[in-house]
Amino acid sequence: MTDITQIVLAKRPAGDVTADCFREEHVALPAVADGQVLIRSRFLSLDPYMRPRMTELRSYTPPFDLDKPLTGGSVGEVVESRNPRYAKGDTVIGMLNWATHTLHDGKGLRKIDPAMAPLQAHLGVLGMPSFTAWYGIRHICKPKAGETAFVSAATGAVGQVAGQLAKLAGARVVGCAGDDDKCQWAVREAGYDACFNHRTERDYGAVLDKLCPQGIDSDFENVGGKIFHAVFARLNDFGRLAFCGAISEYQDKEPISGPPKMFTIVQRRLTLQGFIISDHLALMGEFVSDVGGLLKAGKLRSRETVVDGLAKAPQAFMGLLKGENFGKLVVKVA
Amino acid sequence: MTDITQIVLAKRPAGDVTADCFREEHVALPAVADGQVLIRSRFLSLDPYMRPRMTELRSYTPPFDLDKPLTGGSVGEVVESRNPRYAKGDTVIGMLNWATHTLHDGKGLRKIDPAMAPLQAHLGVLGMPSFTAWYGIRHICKPKAGETAFVSAATGAVGQVAGQLAKLAGARVVGCAGDDDKCQWAVREAGYDACFNHRTERDYGAVLDKLCPQGIDSDFENVGGKIFHAVFARLNDFGRLAFCGAISEYQDKEPISGPPKMFTIVQRRLTLQGFIISDHLALMGEFVSDVGGLLKAGKLRSRETVVDGLAKAPQAFMGLLKGENFGKLVVKVA
Repeated sequence: MTDITQIVLAKRPAGDVTADCFREEHVALPAVADGQVLIRSRFLSLDPYMRPRMTELRSYTPPFDLDKPLTGGSVGEVVESRNPRYAKGDTVIGMLNWATHTLHDGKGLRKIDPAMAPLQAHLGVLGMPSFTAWYGIRHICKPKAGETAFVSAATGAVGQVAGQLAKLAGARVVGCAGDDDKCQWAVREAGYDACFNHRTERDYGAVLDKLCPQGIDSDFENVGGKIFHAVFARLNDFGRLAFCGAISEYQDKEPISGPPKMFTIVQRRLTLQGFIISDHLALMGEFVSDVGGLLKAGKLRSRETVVDGLAKAPQAFMGLLKGENFGKLVVKVA
Repeated sequence: MTDITQIVLAKRPAGDVTADCFREEHVALPAVADGQVLIRSRFLSLDPYMRPRMTELRSYTPPFDLDKPLTGGSVGEVVESRNPRYAKGDTVIGMLNWATHTLHDGKGLRKIDPAMAPLQAHLGVLGMPSFTAWYGIRHICKPKAGETAFVSAATGAVGQVAGQLAKLAGARVVGCAGDDDKCQWAVREAGYDACFNHRTERDYGAVLDKLCPQGIDSDFENVGGKIFHAVFARLNDFGRLAFCGAISEYQDKEPISGPPKMFTIVQRRLTLQGFIISDHLALMGEFVSDVGGLLKAGKLRSRETVVDGLAKAPQAFMGLLKGENFGKLVVKVA
């Protein structure tokens, strides 16, 4: 009988996540109790939100436990079931361990049709990142023709969908990304009107003034920090800011300040709204119908990075926090 | 024939407003042209939002012009009319000059019944400050039983109504004000559960932790700056912040930074919404019916400071920015 290979949180990071925050372990495959299923992971999603979970924040998701496997959105296959809702061979999606196998009580799992799309698509353009983008664009940013929509992390798993949805809604769409190849992809493939490289661009205000001469009507915020400050200062009257993440701030030891002139919120009647997609699962059907239709019609491009092998997950995650991935980052576990 | 006495903006303030920002002038009563009305001011409202208008901000209201009279919400009496909608003797409310008389084209004026309430009430508990409080509480803060609502500038013209509406909605209501008398009035008369003196209290975080042990669910923000930062850090999941003003920041020469950890907006799914009541005039009828009913039923207290004489308006306005008024501040012009 094979063992489980799993990656546990060995210590909480202070600042940058380092390799010694993780530890690979091998444990015996457990016995499956009544009501449980044993799932073999096929793909594991790596996402920026996992970084805040590595420290003990008062946060929306509980922190990961020390010395226990990290978890993440995953697609897997049921290899043994003592739960009447799942049969051996079913393909399921849900929160699984960073592990080859997860013993699961079945709660929060969802069966998917493996013939519908490549399995990893359920973690990206058909999954939570895309649902996140859809919610923020449709329910908060509400871009429309004649407006300028900004998306930070323009080619990330969430940003790439947010930008395309904003473009399909008729807005001028401007983004930023961490290298020139990403910026080119954003413009050539994802339909952004412009995308700047936030690593080589020194003066965010100046580049935004150039690329968004009419100001910014909505911001899908994934990055936070200085880019957020520059965008905030250029929001037009009645601007909407969907606050989805702040990857630039996750590894800062000292919290950075918010933007100056918060009274701008009053002067320009801005709405800043933070959201977490797990609060809106009731809208999943609407998302699937809307975005599924766009996918079928060939109106959405997607880009992903697939890393081969669970052992590479820590390194890939550290790279994700530095923007080294291109598009949705998944680990092919088996 | 009498002259007009008026107060013009003599120079734009840098930092604190000073007496030399104002100049009293005497000009001849003008001839009333076709379509115009000449109005004699009875009461002039002084409000914090006038401070940003004294400088050339990109703002929601255009800045005051140099060497022209400042303007403000006022109640007055028509002394001559060549506008068919107004007759001599009508009592009207609208934006009038800081002046004994204003020549007006009639746009934006509204007739009021002088028998309904003391005239100055139309500038306070029956007027824009109260409408502002009502909008922020009913449409953004939405306090309810079991929640904690915070109101900064708890006894100001806006805050005193906001706090009472939040209390009537069933929330625990906590505020802050600039002296002990105001804090006592807030608790004894306006029904606040607690109110702290932000001038003597050194550690806003500690006092908020004590007075709001369950955190803060909604904030009606009039003050900005450090109080806003401390409240922001204590907002509960799904907290709402109605951003109405930031009086503590209006006289700062250097803009102060926003609160640290803006990612809190995501973690706690906060909504920060700025608003200006002039965008919502379509709701005036609903406000009058709602708040008018509460007033008739004796469920709303109000407190005001009346300054006698237009010449005292500059001094009173400078005092307002330092919190020296108690409740709604109006100038009895004539």
